[in-house]
Amino acid sequence: MTATDNPHGSIVTAAILVIGDEILSGRTKDKNIGYIAEYLTNIGIELREVRVVPDITDEIVAALNALRGRYTYVFTTGGIGPTHDDITADSVAAAFGVSIDHDPRAVAMLAERFSPADLNEARMRMARIPAGAELIANSVSKAPGFNIDNVYVMAGVPAIMQAMMDVVGPTLRTGRKVLSDTIRAGLREGDIGGPLALIAQAHPEVSIGSYPFWSETGPDTNIVVRSRDAQKLEAAMAEVKAMVEVERAKLLS
Amino acid sequence: MTATDNPHGSIVTAAILVIGDEILSGRTKDKNIGYIAEYLTNIGIELREVRVVPDITDEIVAALNALRGRYTYVFTTGGIGPTHDDITADSVAAAFGVSIDHDPRAVAMLAERFSPADLNEARMRMARIPAGAELIANSVSKAPGFNIDNVYVMAGVPAIMQAMMDVVGPTLRTGRKVLSDTIRAGLREGDIGGPLALIAQAHPEVSIGSYPFWSETGPDTNIVVRSRDAQKLEAAMAEVKAMVEVERAKLLS
Repeated sequence: MTATDNPHGSIVTAAILVIGDEILSGRTKDKNIGYIAEYLTNIGIELREVRVVPDITDEIVAALNALRGRYTYVFTTGGIGPTHDDITADSVAAAFGVSIDHDPRAVAMLAERFSPADLNEARMRMARIPAGAELIANSVSKAPGFNIDNVYVMAGVPAIMQAMMDVVGPTLRTGRKVLSDTIRAGLREGDIGGPLALIAQAHPEVSIGSYPFWSETGPDTNIVVRSRDAQKLEAAMAEVKAMVEVERAKLLS
Repeated sequence: MTATDNPHGSIVTAAILVIGDEILSGRTKDKNIGYIAEYLTNIGIELREVRVVPDITDEIVAALNALRGRYTYVFTTGGIGPTHDDITADSVAAAFGVSIDHDPRAVAMLAERFSPADLNEARMRMARIPAGAELIANSVSKAPGFNIDNVYVMAGVPAIMQAMMDVVGPTLRTGRKVLSDTIRAGLREGDIGGPLALIAQAHPEVSIGSYPFWSETGPDTNIVVRSRDAQKLEAAMAEVKAMVEVERAKLLS
């Protein structure tokens, strides 16, 4: 894996595939989607889709094959530990139609942490890597993730996933970063929906989002303007700010 | 909508479709998936899949049509507010091939909260409901969600979604609840992976999950045994507990 410049500013896309019964049962609350989403946005990769699937091989294979054909990158989390319910590596091998076996490089990594006596059959499961994959180092607990084609397979434990993302991130091709600017309107969403829609129509290359929330003083709205083009963003935001001033003034009368 | 008994204990399944650019950009961290997952588990509905898609009509329609044909219920969150980026209702109408217009019942709900002057075109967007849908009352801010066929369309703001879920929940057909029991092993996951796999193989109707975590005393593992059958759960858990005792004893020597 090597870092790749992307001077033409083309759009680089991604999907996340979360693998795990514990997320679907609600027992574990996912913390990885939000982290990876923010990470990718910050380096100029556009997250387009997320799926969460159970620990069932056919479900993992189907979701992975749907996503990897559609987006520049797919990041998976979960299912690469030492127990019988950790079936991600085998499922990824099945999705790519490649063999899977103990990888000597992965075994060596595990041997850094575990004594020969502790490196039992269960832990050796964590060295099962699909043929042709590159390993992703795990600075926390040694057992590696891996990268095959455009798919990056990472741990589900947030601290380990984050360490792996720090290894993977610098190697990814990135697009022009999406810039964003936010204004807190001091108005209810419904007070600005009409004029905001007109601004959005007039600025088709800018994405304008409206996010209501309750502040200490009552209902309020954050308006977020996003674009890859700083000038277009600035022009749209200027109109949003002027509109907000006008709507605030109306309510004062 | 009426509550339905399910005396035969058949399995009732569900998917969640989260709609919103703000989740994919990482700007907003989703809190609804975990909440709905836990809620459904508690009433005996099995969450099988989650997807997060952007505010793009074709993406919403494609995901909704894939999910609603596959699971007993689909719950959507997000995109039913008063601004131009709230396109969920129109997308659901498109997915079902039905018309959409201002629904007099929804307009009446909005009129409870907003004066005629405040019930502007933007807020009236929140009364756009696909033909044939039933409304889901919103005790927080009045603007309703809706139910069409097996799809339940709810707000993205967690407090409002939760209020809607409390309305919807009692009307859903539910299956036999999945029971679960958890033991904290006091062992690293890799110490128990081998014997745990044998127990899992011997109990095919029981699902056994293994979830590592760091405790104040070091690495530890929660083992979760799940089944719809209390006796089968108990039998498997007894073996898990005995195995944990044995493995702990080994480490003492």
